[in-house]
This record gives sequence, C-alpha cells and structure tokens, in this order.
Amino acid sequence: MTKPKMFEKPAGVKDYLPEAAERLRQVETRVLDCMRRWGYREIITPTLEFYDTVGAASSTSDAKLFKLLDKRGVTMVLRSDLTAPIARVVASLLRDAPLPLRLSYHANVFRAMEEGAGRDAEFYQTGVELVGDGTPEADAEVIALAVACLKAAGVDRFLIALGHVGFLNGLFRETLRDCPEEAEHELKDCLLRRDHVGYRQRLRELPLSAEAKGDLEGLLRLRGGKEICSQARPFTRDPLGFSSLDHLCRVFEALEDYGVSEHVRIDLTMIGDFSYYTGVYFEGYAADLGFPVASGGRYDNLLRQFGRPAPATGFALKTDRILEVVGGRLLERTRRALVLFDTAGRKAALQYAAQLRNHGGWAVETRFLPEDETLEVAPERLAARNGERDAADERFAPDAAAQSGGPERIRLPDVTAGGTRAGACLVQGVRYDEVIVFAEEGKAWRKR
Amino acid sequence: MTKPKMFEKPAGVKDYLPEAAERLRQVETRVLDCMRRWGYREIITPTLEFYDTVGAASSTSDAKLFKLLDKRGVTMVLRSDLTAPIARVVASLLRDAPLPLRLSYHANVFRAMEEGAGRDAEFYQTGVELVGDGTPEADAEVIALAVACLKAAGVDRFLIALGHVGFLNGLFRETLRDCPEEAEHELKDCLLRRDHVGYRQRLRELPLSAEAKGDLEGLLRLRGGKEICSQARPFTRDPLGFSSLDHLCRVFEALEDYGVSEHVRIDLTMIGDFSYYTGVYFEGYAADLGFPVASGGRYDNLLRQFGRPAPATGFALKTDRILEVVGGRLLERTRRALVLFDTAGRKAALQYAAQLRNHGGWAVETRFLPEDETLEVAPERLAARNGERDAADERFAPDAAAQSGGPERIRLPDVTAGGTRAGACLVQGVRYDEVIVFAEEGKAWRKR
Repeated sequence: MTKPKMFEKPAGVKDYLPEAAERLRQVETRVLDCMRRWGYREIITPTLEFYDTVGAASSTSDAKLFKLLDKRGVTMVLRSDLTAPIARVVASLLRDAPLPLRLSYHANVFRAMEEGAGRDAEFYQTGVELVGDGTPEADAEVIALAVACLKAAGVDRFLIALGHVGFLNGLFRETLRDCPEEAEHELKDCLLRRDHVGYRQRLRELPLSAEAKGDLEGLLRLRGGKEICSQARPFTRDPLGFSSLDHLCRVFEALEDYGVSEHVRIDLTMIGDFSYYTGVYFEGYAADLGFPVASGGRYDNLLRQFGRPAPATGFALKTDRILEVVGGRLLERTRRALVLFDTAGRKAALQYAAQLRNHGGWAVETRFLPEDETLEVAPERLAARNGERDAADERFAPDAAAQSGGPERIRLPDVTAGGTRAGACLVQGVRYDEVIVFAEEGKAWRKR
Repeated sequence: MTKPKMFEKPAGVKDYLPEAAERLRQVETRVLDCMRRWGYREIITPTLEFYDTVGAASSTSDAKLFKLLDKRGVTMVLRSDLTAPIARVVASLLRDAPLPLRLSYHANVFRAMEEGAGRDAEFYQTGVELVGDGTPEADAEVIALAVACLKAAGVDRFLIALGHVGFLNGLFRETLRDCPEEAEHELKDCLLRRDHVGYRQRLRELPLSAEAKGDLEGLLRLRGGKEICSQARPFTRDPLGFSSLDHLCRVFEALEDYGVSEHVRIDLTMIGDFSYYTGVYFEGYAADLGFPVASGGRYDNLLRQFGRPAPATGFALKTDRILEVVGGRLLERTRRALVLFDTAGRKAALQYAAQLRNHGGWAVETRFLPEDETLEVAPERLAARNGERDAADERFAPDAAAQSGGPERIRLPDVTAGGTRAGACLVQGVRYDEVIVFAEEGKAWRKR
C-alpha cells in the first residue's frame, strides 16, 4: 500500500467548505428548533462506544462498523446510529426520568463502506426518539414531526411511505407455513431492495396455494391512502397481522387530525433494513430523488437489551441528502464588510468595526494596510464591466444571493470622522458589500 | 479482559443530558455567531483523517492519537485538533481561494488517554484560523476575537497570558551556547509544566555565566503589562529574540486599540506544548480555574507541509471547560406546555398545539388519554405544598430557571372551545408551565 498524498483524506468522508457548512448548520438549526417546539430535548452522546454494548445492539451489520481498540484491548466502535446510544442513556443516566421521554439529536454517524461502493463513511443524522409510549398516537406524533421537520429543512415536496412490520410478519407466518425456512427472509430481502420482479419470481417457485400466492402478490398493490386499511383487511387472518393493520390505521387517522395525511401513503411492502423495527416503519421521499431523506419507526425490543424494557418510536433525517435536495439555495445571508486601516486610522477603524459587528447582519473583516504597499479596491460596477471575477474566486468568496442580485440596501451606522465609505467593492478578487477605509487615500489604497 | 456492562461507555467519553447539551449548544451558537461577525466562516472537516498526513502534521503526540485501519490497511486517526485538517483543506480544496482566509470551526476532537489519567478522550473545541497574514495586526485580531468569544460564551472574568516562542528561542540560543544539547529542551519542559522550582534547579546545574543565569532566571519575572516590552529588551541581543519582542509589542499596541489590553498580561515564559508554534503563543485563564479555557498562537510552518506555504495564526476555545465555568446557569429558557386529549378532543388539541408551537418560546408536548385510564394533573401550588417533587424528577425534567422561580407570565394563544387551561401543573412528576386539556373532565383527568 502506498502512503497517502498530503491532500488526501479517507474514502467516503468529506469536507464542508464554508457555503456547504452554512447550509448544513441552517438545516440543523431549523430542524432542532422544530423538534424543540414539539417538546424534544437534544442529547449528545460520544462518538466512541463499546462494540459489545451499543455496537452489538445497533442495527448496523458487523462488517459496516468501524472498530478500534482501547488501551486495555477492549473493542470500541464509531457509532453507526444514535438510537442504540440513546437507549443506553435512557436505561442508565436517565433510568429514573419519568416516561414518556422525548429526545432529539443531530450527530455524525459512521459506516465502513464496501470497497469501492462510493457511499458515505461519515454522514449526519438529525432525529428524535419518543420512549415509553406504545400507542398509535405516539407513532403518529413522530411521523407528523418528521413532516414538520422536512418542511423546516426546506424540503417542499415529499411523501412518507408508511407500512407495518407486524402486518408483513403476520402475513408471511400465515402463508409461508409449508415453505422452506429461508423463503420469508428471501421475500423480505426482495421487498427491502424494492425488487418486485425478484419477489414475484421467488413466489412462483414456492409451494403455495393459489390463494396464498394471490395474497402475497396482491401485497405489492397495497399502496395508497386510507382505503388501503379496508383493502388490506381480507389479506390476513393472523392475529399479529390483524392487530398490526388496526394499529396502522389508527396511526393514519391520527395523522388526518394532524393535518398531514396528504403527505402520507400507506405502503404495506415497507420493511426497515433494521432488524429491530417491531411496528410501523416509514421512509420519507423527496420529489425527484431516488433515495429516502428520512426513515423511522417503532422498535419496542431495543430498550429491553439495555435493562429498561419500554416501547419506543422515532425517526432520523438523512441530513446530507436533504442538503442535496435544498441544493444551492442559501437560506439566509450575511452581508460582508471590509474595514481597511493604516496605523494612524487603526483605533477609529477597530471601533467602527466593533460597532458594525454589534449592529447585526454583517460579517466584518478588518485589514491593516502596510505603509509601503497599496491595495487595489475596485468599486463593483467597474469591476463587473471589466469582467474581473474569475472562477477561482467564485468557488469560495461569493454566495448565491450575492451573485444573483445586488444585496438589499440596509443602513450602515454612520462612518466617523477619518473614515470613508467606498460601497460595494472587489478587493483582491473578493467581493464585499461595503468597504470602509480609515487610511490616507492615495498612499494606502486606490480606486480605479 | 471482561465484557463491558450494557450501561458502560469507553473511558474518557461522556453523555450530555438535555440540560448539558442545551448549555453546550448555547455556547457553540454564541461563539460561532461572534466569529461570523468578525468575518470568519465555519468549515466542517471529517472525523477520520490519514495518519500519514493530518495525523503526522498535528501537534498531538503519537501515543495520544486514536488509530484504526481502513479497508485497504492504511492507518487512519480520529482528528486530535482542527488546525491540521484545516491546513489540508486550505492547501487543497481552497488552494485557489485568495488569502487571507478566515475560517472557524466547532468540533469534537480525540486524544487517547494515559491509562487512568482521567482526562477526556473526546471533547469539543471552538476556534478560528486566520491564514495568509503574518503581521502583528493578524495576531492581535485573533487575540481580540478570543476575548470577544470568551465574553460571548458567558465567561466574565478571565486573563490572556501572552508570550512569544521566538523570544524564548532567541534567548536560549544565545545563553545556552555552551550547554549540553538537552538543556534547552529540559528548561522549556519546566516552563511548559510551570515548574519554576525545577527550572531554577536545572539552571543552577548548567555551566553558565552569572549574567546568563541572571537573565534566564529573570525571565520568570517578565510578566505584566506593556512595561514588559521595555523591561525585556536588555535580556536578548539575539536577532530572533529581538525581532520577536518587537512583534509582540506591536501586538500589544494593537490590542490597546481594540480596547481589550486590560484582559491581556504579557508572560514571556509562555510556551505552547505544540511543537508547531512559531511566534506569539497565548492561553486564556478563567478566574478561579486552574487550567486554560483557550489557547492559540502563530504557526507559520504548518501550511508548507501541505504544499501551500503561508503564515497562519488562530486559537481554540476549550468548550467543555468553558461549560464548567459558566456552570449551572442556563442562558435562555423555553417554557414547557402539555396538551392532553382524548379521541374526541384530538383534532382541536393538535390544532391548538400547532398554534402554540408557531407562537414561539414554547416546547409543546401532546399526550393521548386512553379511555380506560386517568392521568393525575396536580396544579402546581398544591403539589409544592405536598412536597411532591422528588429527586428523580429534578435530575431530568426541570431546568434551573424553572426551579429558582416562577416562569414569567406570557400570554398564551386563546384556548378554543372544548379546551380547558389548567395552568402550571405536575403531571406524573414532571412540571409543566401550562397544561391544556381537550378531554372530558372526570373521565380522563382529575385535579386534586
């Protein structure tokens, strides 16, 4: 193996340059604020957990966990989700806190990639866990909150696909009674991968009655609105399947009262790739994007593993994917000012910069003009005519709003004696909404 | 080695329960906002870096790096600071961005602990890097910004101890000319550990002239305000020592113009434990706290290692330590409301909750009251008289402001027909500032 080059970083991880970091922060801030308004309080857990505790309890397959050893030789993992760590906290530090508990998080998680798979090894999740409430109302709450959070994040068009693991388990238990043991796993795997061709193919090979085959194939069509609740009823006589469907329909009714059912489609083929889902499972899809931007559901068995049996439901937004959806839109914008000064003007310049910083809405840089140098300060209109802005500059300095139109004019604090306002300018290839100079003209700067 | 218990986590890492997480977030938000106002833009880099690049360039000793292997067997590290990763980005993705660059960060960093040392293995740093400006003005800017950030974080009383590595190097080069090679390292090590007894002891053992001994011992007294600039001048005739002192004094003069010199004490024994500091070095100390809450300085050689030689200066706040200083003070406070409902009241209840959430300033939980259960809702004054709040509750639910006095009264949106306002109540041991009920009284809830 060759030594990495100095500019290289590990496969699957990325840098967020200022504009991307700002977008990530804005989504994070808005979503966490939305969760807070719904009574969810943020919790922060460590990046490192023990393999034998959180690692084993997590939904991530062993091969995808990043592992390392502590000083005593005990295996640790980089967390692969937040659900298992939060279960640990709920069962330990928060063991005396009354239920239900509403907790939120925004954190980076880690998944070791398949070689060359090109998937992210580190990415951000923003989510909630509602612990200690097993009712359909609780499931509806987290789904309605997922809808509110997607809207808060700037995702305008999306659909929540909603199913129930118990309905599938009941249906399979009932219809696959006389089939080889692996049949259920294989069919579920097809559903997970949304491979309906493979699913039908496998069905044909199984020793099933025509009626059972019909039910299992009909499952693929159980997608739609509230009508699915009655359409699905004849499919299963299994008690688990039946009670699961009932639970699911109560969730949908509550979502109608939340006023968000227009965003929800029942899809009884939905199956989480997490073995720990025990009830409703859902994924959120943004329009024109092939992969989910949110997923969640009920996991009533996880807390028991940590010694505090309790029902639980929650979801995680796939925050990086949401950034792809909201794209280049910068949600807010800070105006950029540059205060230039020489030694004589320094004190007045720094006082003015402090005033402008307190004023709000401005990012204020200051720069010293050495006695023996000049700095080119080009008023914006001139520069634009001369076509001076080059690609290298665009990469970093200007943001979308600055490029697409002039900034709104807002009143600057009055410039004190000794200072001169130069307006919007280009300075060494960087665009500023305002340049204010506290220096001898001619000597230290020049307009063109 | 024994298998860890389910509630255990690796040594040196911690969970931030909601109140601690909220404080961490508030400090983070305020400090990043302060940096933004000064023109610094946040950058986010990955947790994992290559050992041979960022790991080797970082200031952290090899034994303190957490190491793991990628799929190809190349060694990776968990980042131990942000300075080296940001240098990598400045020299690669931002290689065409014009200098100076002002970048900020808030991130967790990792240091493998000595066995039993009890130090944090994962902790948060919030800092800036100012790349491409080698002037004393740039050093003064980051120190003035450190002062502004400490204030923004809620640290009221603190001092910045400011020295210059070049002054020390010049003085040692000049005075230790005839000493064993290891003498300089040993003396520096004493200064780093603030072991003045050991420093004097080592001095006595060295083959030095009385004058040199006097200078090296006098160094320990070179602490104070601007007068140190003139007092230190006779100590060194070495060109590096001399120019370093001149640079340091220019920094101090600029800090006077920033209006922050009252927070700064020159201390010429200051020496970074990072081998890469090349110029001024400073640490911020909060009153009554034995360890620094901030540190930073100039590192002009790091960028060269990544292929883009450029001077640079910056600092990092030790955010977890700042949380210890600002302690239990919760900087802001959200009022907590509970909306209770039965099936008949659900739609009205959920609409009211949505209204209250939009209203702002409220964290609004909703709870379904099953037909066959009652829920005890105890108005606050009654509950307080009965001494109902127990320790388990205090741990999680109420925040400092709620405990220390009644909440300010702010107007609630009018409760619609069908709803009843119950005021501040205890519900199953949790205190709410407002409880609003949309359910048949008597059946579903009762006051006492």
